Amino acid sequence: MKLYYSPPSPFSRKVRVAAAVLRLSEDMALTPVDTLDPADPLRDKNPLGKIPVLETNDGECIYDSAVIAAWLDEQAGGGGVIPRDPKARTRALVLEALADGLTDSAVLIVYESRYREPQERSAKWLAHQGGKIQRALAQLEQVPPALDGTPDIGQIALACALGYLDLRFSGEWRAAHPRLVAWFDDFTQRVPAFAATAGEPKLNA
Amino acid sequence: MKLYYSPPSPFSRKVRVAAAVLRLSEDMALTPVDTLDPADPLRDKNPLGKIPVLETNDGECIYDSAVIAAWLDEQAGGGGVIPRDPKARTRALVLEALADGLTDSAVLIVYESRYREPQERSAKWLAHQGGKIQRALAQLEQVPPALDGTPDIGQIALACALGYLDLRFSGEWRAAHPRLVAWFDDFTQRVPAFAATAGEPKLNA
Repeated sequence: MKLYYSPPSPFSRKVRVAAAVLRLSEDMALTPVDTLDPADPLRDKNPLGKIPVLETNDGECIYDSAVIAAWLDEQAGGGGVIPRDPKARTRALVLEALADGLTDSAVLIVYESRYREPQERSAKWLAHQGGKIQRALAQLEQVPPALDGTPDIGQIALACALGYLDLRFSGEWRAAHPRLVAWFDDFTQRVPAFAATAGEPKLNA
Repeated sequence: MKLYYSPPSPFSRKVRVAAAVLRLSEDMALTPVDTLDPADPLRDKNPLGKIPVLETNDGECIYDSAVIAAWLDEQAGGGGVIPRDPKARTRALVLEALADGLTDSAVLIVYESRYREPQERSAKWLAHQGGKIQRALAQLEQVPPALDGTPDIGQIALACALGYLDLRFSGEWRAAHPRLVAWFDDFTQRVPAFAATAGEPKLNA
């Protein structure tokens, strides 16, 4: 199988870390794409032009990152990064949605500079997206998720969200969220694939 | 259980239609929220301030719409709107991601006017989001999904995406996509809950 991705993309990282945890990385060829290039084959794989996309050996294209992660989990036999227990599964998937939503807002803030002339930027929009990030961080700081055994997809998504804040916003989130910083350090130590997939800030994401 | 939602929200509609197909609507109290009001209880339920959120009878809050739909499917015994067969399930979830991505772009275009002063609007950004919608529609027009028996979550998401284009963009998509219009008409006839959840364009979404 083939993963269309870009190195600093937080959603691509989520899938790469999940694949590593599931011991599927060796079967996954990494194909970098340029999401801004209309001629890039990406748009034939996913008309939305979003990454990551997983192309199976049968030529089927799977997206978005949550659907890919669930598919990989099944390929690995199930119960790896998606818990089998219904309550634990729901908890993991809600955490994934929270972390992905945080990342979406961070990406929209980055895009505000990437796609717009200075006079087209909106303080109101930036504050709206920033508020989502701050409230999500505040809730997570109160009770960081427990970490033991195999990380689930919610925890992986959260680490990728925080890694993206580090990458694009100089780790500003750290000062006010010491328990989440401790959680992040613990995750990084437990899951070697996380440090191994750190992006290079120069590229698009 | 309780659904925090707003009437014209396409992602809320997806969950409401899924609940109806699964015969769970009667157990779901509808609680309208105002996503723009900081004092609305919504932000205690989901710090992202996004709808829909499902609160279970145990007080657990579930989001986003894809996670809620999967949870409802389990409550109804499984295999309702989320196919049990792995290939059919992946097909349904990828269609859901495509339709939701189309809806996300349509929402971003609507927000361009809602959040920004006229001089802050970007033709480049609008074209970027519009391109995603056009490419997604073009792919769907080539091979509209088959419809038979219980609609799956991908088909429900697609109907809600097209319904949102009708609501906010005066059905402009229809002229160039006759097969998708036929599909949409067929879906509307087969799934009475769809027409029953049509939004009122005055409200936020």
